[in-house]
Amino acid sequence: MRAYILSIGDELVSGLTVNTNCAWLSQQLTGLGIGTSTHLTVGDEPEPIRKAIQEACDKCDVLLISGGLGPTEDDLTRQMIAEALGEKLVEDGCALEQLEHWFKSRNRVMSPSNRVQAQRPESARCLENTCGTAPGLAATKGKTRIFAMPGVPREMKEMFTRSVLPEIKQAAGDRVTLVTKINTYGMGESILGEKIKDLMKRGANPAVGTTVHDGIVSVRIYATGTRDEAIAMTQKIREQVYARLGALIFGENEATIEGAVAALLKERRETIATAESCTGGTLGALLTDIAGSSTYFLRGWVTYSNESKTDELGVPAALIAEHGAVSEPVVRAMAEGARKRAGTSYGIGITGIAGPDGGTEEKPVGTVWLAVASDTGTEARRIVFPGDRKAVRLRASQMALALLRWRILDVGFDTVTK
Amino acid sequence: MRAYILSIGDELVSGLTVNTNCAWLSQQLTGLGIGTSTHLTVGDEPEPIRKAIQEACDKCDVLLISGGLGPTEDDLTRQMIAEALGEKLVEDGCALEQLEHWFKSRNRVMSPSNRVQAQRPESARCLENTCGTAPGLAATKGKTRIFAMPGVPREMKEMFTRSVLPEIKQAAGDRVTLVTKINTYGMGESILGEKIKDLMKRGANPAVGTTVHDGIVSVRIYATGTRDEAIAMTQKIREQVYARLGALIFGENEATIEGAVAALLKERRETIATAESCTGGTLGALLTDIAGSSTYFLRGWVTYSNESKTDELGVPAALIAEHGAVSEPVVRAMAEGARKRAGTSYGIGITGIAGPDGGTEEKPVGTVWLAVASDTGTEARRIVFPGDRKAVRLRASQMALALLRWRILDVGFDTVTK
Repeated sequence: MRAYILSIGDELVSGLTVNTNCAWLSQQLTGLGIGTSTHLTVGDEPEPIRKAIQEACDKCDVLLISGGLGPTEDDLTRQMIAEALGEKLVEDGCALEQLEHWFKSRNRVMSPSNRVQAQRPESARCLENTCGTAPGLAATKGKTRIFAMPGVPREMKEMFTRSVLPEIKQAAGDRVTLVTKINTYGMGESILGEKIKDLMKRGANPAVGTTVHDGIVSVRIYATGTRDEAIAMTQKIREQVYARLGALIFGENEATIEGAVAALLKERRETIATAESCTGGTLGALLTDIAGSSTYFLRGWVTYSNESKTDELGVPAALIAEHGAVSEPVVRAMAEGARKRAGTSYGIGITGIAGPDGGTEEKPVGTVWLAVASDTGTEARRIVFPGDRKAVRLRASQMALALLRWRILDVGFDTVTK
Repeated sequence: MRAYILSIGDELVSGLTVNTNCAWLSQQLTGLGIGTSTHLTVGDEPEPIRKAIQEACDKCDVLLISGGLGPTEDDLTRQMIAEALGEKLVEDGCALEQLEHWFKSRNRVMSPSNRVQAQRPESARCLENTCGTAPGLAATKGKTRIFAMPGVPREMKEMFTRSVLPEIKQAAGDRVTLVTKINTYGMGESILGEKIKDLMKRGANPAVGTTVHDGIVSVRIYATGTRDEAIAMTQKIREQVYARLGALIFGENEATIEGAVAALLKERRETIATAESCTGGTLGALLTDIAGSSTYFLRGWVTYSNESKTDELGVPAALIAEHGAVSEPVVRAMAEGARKRAGTSYGIGITGIAGPDGGTEEKPVGTVWLAVASDTGTEARRIVFPGDRKAVRLRASQMALALLRWRILDVGFDTVTK
């Protein structure tokens, strides 16, 4: 099966809104073993929309449309599907009822223009929208199934998952492509790629590749076959990837490094305190991004000024004077001070030069000292991160989480980053 | 003039990568008064690419292509442009020299496969790539100008700005569309829209509309004419928008609310300290996201546990016991404690229930107390933010910045949010 994704909206072709719908939909289709040939985006004008629908139907088995289902005269998707099918629009009683209910349950009056949203081409079906007013449409033209969904991502995703996916799944048969993402932190993509190079042969099934997003290097496995076959093939590759990458791996699919650390701390009933300088609270924000973080995160300091490092964490002023705020002795004292003061299992210290100013030859912009203190002692590490201020701050916070994770797992910092 | 944007790459149609290039390019074209009719994305296969180029040329004056210029056999853009033009590929001496220089200056050996990147259709020109290996192409088919650029956003943007934009600008003539974004915080889009409803007539020039992104409501002005006309028209609308929205406006175009606060604090040589609970460091991270933030941001606390609120900020334990950690007396004590302890001009306190758990009937999820302390006293406000944990934490931090800004400007909290 081949899919074609059509997005409709002036806000998209004008560049006001980045189109994230089509990437999301293609990902969902990949999971069903369905390839996407084309993403097409046109504005809110009748001719281009009608033409796009007609041409797309000749080229695919599934046409997914998003956008243009609103109540205003700009919203032309219903009308243009009807024209492409050579049909008239009729009012759908059930959709009208759902629309009326939507407004009533929110104590709002339905405007007459909303009524047009209950219309559908004669042979089409309406798809319920559980989180907005625009119902979707399902229709068939020749051998092509057409599904029209709202443009608002949240509504589109809900409708796709609830009403479109089950139908496509059935039609797609029992061959699927399972996509598994194994997430790592602490090694660059090219060095990591070398370690699994032999698994990444072109055209192989499962196909294996690497991607980088926000500093996280992921190994992706695409296994195609029946569900059972795909699961078995994935498992074989997974084992090899784990054997080679070990403690660099912190989780799979949607797992985040902060989530992995949070799970470890919760499981062991251990606690953490943070002492941040250049990251300004980014690490604390990551650690508390997880629901229930109060069980392990007790307190944090953003000790931006030298005085605050001394006042709050007990870093000796002489130490800062002698070595500078960005130095191994200071970051060690920060981590130890935070741990002691908060009475936690672990203390993390971060101090560095996020830039764009403040760099020197000896300590260029991007230089960050990181330390983790625990009852077995304190380990520190200096890393020069590439990129701008934003990147340095995020990477330093992620690396702090990675170091903490390795410390909890009792893996030496040097072993894993080699 | 009409533009058509063609993106090429399997990673795009498969949904692995969200296509941000086409939105960015359309925005640039809008600035030149050029509308975009279509965004089309196809995979790395010869037939669809050739067809797309041929069909697009019939429909536009400018065809912008990104992707498929790499050195591997997957990269077909050069070849397909040549076929669409009915020409052969020839080696470009200048492009080859630049390629060789690129590798040499990085002490790397150029592989034979890279040499193919110096090829161009006979009648085309190569465009220099100053931050990668793939040169771009400029060609003409009938009345259509074709520009091919790399798919990597950073390289594409650099090449567009440096080599493509000047040529299109010249061809576009002296009519431009100036886009101005006036950014506000503190009032919902629909209520704000009511205040400038009469400016938002359909089809008017300047066109005025509102958009929301990450809680920031922006008023967009699109003025079309000669540059001078567009500037004058924008100014007239801008004055009206400022007169009606006043202190809700914190800046224009790329301005952020943290940047606006930072500028005010720097200008007045004033300082700030933060006391965060539910936001876990997000506010500190925002305030230190600005280069040079150490001049105004001195220190911050993430007092997540009740004990830490008492230990670090001097919030009386009895106050927490009586009113709960999410309460007006506690948030006031937090803001005042932070200001006093850090010796800053301002102190901010945030305490709330970010969810998903911990809500009660009296204090539902999303309930946040915010306070700003200064030498004129302490002002506090309770807001129930909608959305999930992530949204509540970000909105609460943004609102804290908005309240701080209004306090610095000596504007009452109630005036502006009414």
